[in-house]
Amino acid sequence: MLIKFYIKPRKGVLDPQGRAVSESLKSLGFSDVKDVKVGKYIEVYIENKDKEKAVEEAKEMARKALVNDLIEDYEFEIVE
Amino acid sequence: MLIKFYIKPRKGVLDPQGRAVSESLKSLGFSDVKDVKVGKYIEVYIENKDKEKAVEEAKEMARKALVNDLIEDYEFEIVE
Repeated sequence: MLIKFYIKPRKGVLDPQGRAVSESLKSLGFSDVKDVKVGKYIEVYIENKDKEKAVEEAKEMARKALVNDLIEDYEFEIVE
Repeated sequence: MLIKFYIKPRKGVLDPQGRAVSESLKSLGFSDVKDVKVGKYIEVYIENKDKEKAVEEAKEMARKALVNDLIEDYEFEIVE
């Protein structure tokens, strides 16, 4: 089974990559761009298990290794 | 409206970050981890418009600026 993590800078936290991408898109002619946030997309493939357990494990992975809670927000989903 | 891009290394392309995260998770006790891919998660906020037009614009953004088609795969979704 697969855990997909979507991680992005918290609101108010400086996001220089997002800013750079935003400027780049505008300079390419995408004038309707209002804001850009750049974060991480992480796929973790694990051995099949109970979905409830996988949810717990995903939270633990985020807390211990994948997400810096001070500056990042995250969501995840489990794909079977 | 919001375009969410999920970008990851293509199959077969070296993914050193994914490997590092995989080893790190295993060393933390997540012994059921089989594989990890690390990519980018990009949120682009644009002025509201026709959804069909937004889909076309998203593809153009990916092609021109956000995705390196040689080494990356991507998906996107539009949130209104």
